[in-house]
Amino acid sequence: MSLIVMKFGGSSVGDAERMKRVAKRIVERKREGHSCVIVVSAMGDTTDDLIDLSNQINDGALPAAREMDMLLTTGEQVSVALLSMAIHNLGEQAVSFTGWQSGIYTEAVHGKARITDIQPERVLNAIEQGNVVIVAGFQGMTQEGEITTLGRGGSDTTAVALAAAIKADLCEIYTDVDGVYSTDPRIVKVARKLNEISYDEMLELANLGAAVLHPRAVEYAKNYNVTLVVRSSFTYNEGTNVKEEAVMEQGIVVRGIAYDKNVARVSILGVPEKPGQLAKVFLALADVQIDVDIIVQSGVINGSADFSFTTNLNDREKALDVLERIRGEIGFREVTSEVNLVKVSIVGAGMVSTPGVAATMFKVISDLGISISLVSTSEIKMSCVIDAAPLQDVIRALHSAYGLDTTEQAFVGGPQDRR
Amino acid sequence: MSLIVMKFGGSSVGDAERMKRVAKRIVERKREGHSCVIVVSAMGDTTDDLIDLSNQINDGALPAAREMDMLLTTGEQVSVALLSMAIHNLGEQAVSFTGWQSGIYTEAVHGKARITDIQPERVLNAIEQGNVVIVAGFQGMTQEGEITTLGRGGSDTTAVALAAAIKADLCEIYTDVDGVYSTDPRIVKVARKLNEISYDEMLELANLGAAVLHPRAVEYAKNYNVTLVVRSSFTYNEGTNVKEEAVMEQGIVVRGIAYDKNVARVSILGVPEKPGQLAKVFLALADVQIDVDIIVQSGVINGSADFSFTTNLNDREKALDVLERIRGEIGFREVTSEVNLVKVSIVGAGMVSTPGVAATMFKVISDLGISISLVSTSEIKMSCVIDAAPLQDVIRALHSAYGLDTTEQAFVGGPQDRR
Repeated sequence: MSLIVMKFGGSSVGDAERMKRVAKRIVERKREGHSCVIVVSAMGDTTDDLIDLSNQINDGALPAAREMDMLLTTGEQVSVALLSMAIHNLGEQAVSFTGWQSGIYTEAVHGKARITDIQPERVLNAIEQGNVVIVAGFQGMTQEGEITTLGRGGSDTTAVALAAAIKADLCEIYTDVDGVYSTDPRIVKVARKLNEISYDEMLELANLGAAVLHPRAVEYAKNYNVTLVVRSSFTYNEGTNVKEEAVMEQGIVVRGIAYDKNVARVSILGVPEKPGQLAKVFLALADVQIDVDIIVQSGVINGSADFSFTTNLNDREKALDVLERIRGEIGFREVTSEVNLVKVSIVGAGMVSTPGVAATMFKVISDLGISISLVSTSEIKMSCVIDAAPLQDVIRALHSAYGLDTTEQAFVGGPQDRR
Repeated sequence: MSLIVMKFGGSSVGDAERMKRVAKRIVERKREGHSCVIVVSAMGDTTDDLIDLSNQINDGALPAAREMDMLLTTGEQVSVALLSMAIHNLGEQAVSFTGWQSGIYTEAVHGKARITDIQPERVLNAIEQGNVVIVAGFQGMTQEGEITTLGRGGSDTTAVALAAAIKADLCEIYTDVDGVYSTDPRIVKVARKLNEISYDEMLELANLGAAVLHPRAVEYAKNYNVTLVVRSSFTYNEGTNVKEEAVMEQGIVVRGIAYDKNVARVSILGVPEKPGQLAKVFLALADVQIDVDIIVQSGVINGSADFSFTTNLNDREKALDVLERIRGEIGFREVTSEVNLVKVSIVGAGMVSTPGVAATMFKVISDLGISISLVSTSEIKMSCVIDAAPLQDVIRALHSAYGLDTTEQAFVGGPQDRR
């Protein structure tokens, strides 16, 4: 008799048949005696279809973020209504709620708002009345009654935040893979499914582009100590437990390898050395909601410095515009940028206490004849930005070098085959 | 400098191009110096597509009305967001609101709720700030925060009710025809566009199946004395004014002819004559939200009576179920029902003071060799329920008989050609 939050992503409810299968899964849980709160994303390609529609209206103009939120939140509202009907058809009570009906409050930012508060009374009342409660993921409301979205992948965050707010015993993230893998199984066939991973490791992997969980969701889970399980909505296999401390296998230091193709490098050359210059640049970028990842500064030569940062591919042009605008104020010489890059990262809680981990990464990459554009390290991860072209070779070589290859083939074929 | 409510139906915003044309139309109004509140329906076939989706989930089971409302209200939310973007692209400020954001409160009935209250502060504030305000039609919220719909055609009601609540100077209903016609121009090519019509006449025509305006909207307009104009979203032609008193042309008694194919007859035979029997039957039908239209009772013979009523085709089975349930309590002998019927009605404020109007109708119908199943009259209308097959001949003959044919052809082709 637990209180369980179950989250289903867009591909798990991609069409009516899958929706019904998810309903069956939920009803099984319910009939095991659990109280279930479901968080669901928009069906399959709905979000992309809605974006297409807005493109037809906007002819390349950037739509107002507020109106995009109005538009996109309909996708999840469709899902929750249909899923509720599917559960009714299996003979169980269910009730669907939008983000605002679920009491999910966010900051007043459109497109990627953070949850500021959850007032779960309505959800709790509905559970008490014996309902499966189905909540639209990815969305919330400001104090002023404006509809907001948490950004892509935000349904994970909805699930975890709701689990924390209602003090759920467990938060299950159902997805189209069996769990968290040591790396992308589409690239490395012998990737291993992890039984456990720590919040911190998962956070790094998620931040580094492992799409299986949204980083904000992991952060939330860590902060509120929500027990997370990542598992498949298509099989009954054990998933991956995400928790405070995870057991490391004997002789293994790196838990997983992630990559992110959505990377652009921007370099600012000849910045006059004056206090506060860097702050001005990054405040200006933050003002327009540009996320900056790796930042590297060279030494100062003749009173001026060069520095580089990475950002989302999509944000590159916006970043260049911002820099052009503040060029006069900062007085730098030149801005360059580069695309067709990839960021490859190794993650493992044991890295900090194991010498030679970094050296191995550099050696593997240089043995393949590839030069490294940027490097960034933390206690439990190390990232290298390199040319995108040799990505597969690099990941395979790293996966072997860190002893991550499983002896038997974990599965045959890519993730598509397991849907 | 007026405050105008403009309502656009689904076919007016059927695709991105039409949406942009509507935006242009709105911006023209705005630049004439008016404050504009827009009410918009779901795009073209969106509602039907959503119903299809729910059918795929429900495999013939009846979905919960609450969840249907959650599902269907997304259609208008998509429209308002896109229309807002389209107006932005033309350089004007606009903001979109759902029903609940617009302060539209309804009774706690799903599928065809009535508006109980409008709290228009948010809409008024947004106008004050210079915005075109775009409101999702057809939807509202209960006091408990449940999402409701007003039923099909409910966007007209949203527009008129909002016009009353914000004390608008004018409520323009944009549609795919030039105005209100003396009858369906798809059937009678020489149908005439009316310049004026009274609320009462319009109400009868709307109730009788003239799809151009929803009856509830007309009722609302009459009660709150909202000046209505029905006009085309595709042309700049003058529309039809709907108002308290409308001028009747010399020699014309019948304003228009309507028909309704969505009719079923149900007859209850051998009802024991006891006080309160009829009330029991119709209360039971009202309990499940079945609208009953014409009711006819025969004389009492041997202590028992027969009576018949008409209802929506879609409600027929539900009505038969209800009657079966109360059969024991009432003790009637038999229930029969009939489909493939049509109700043909003539409407005109002058009918009450002109002898022979009814006789003409009966003669026209009997001259065509058609028998009449049910008759119902009011001060300004008369309806006959007949076989559906000869509908076109009957309407053409009535249109001529009451002097409604225009001398010149009003237009060539059906309404589709004028889109």
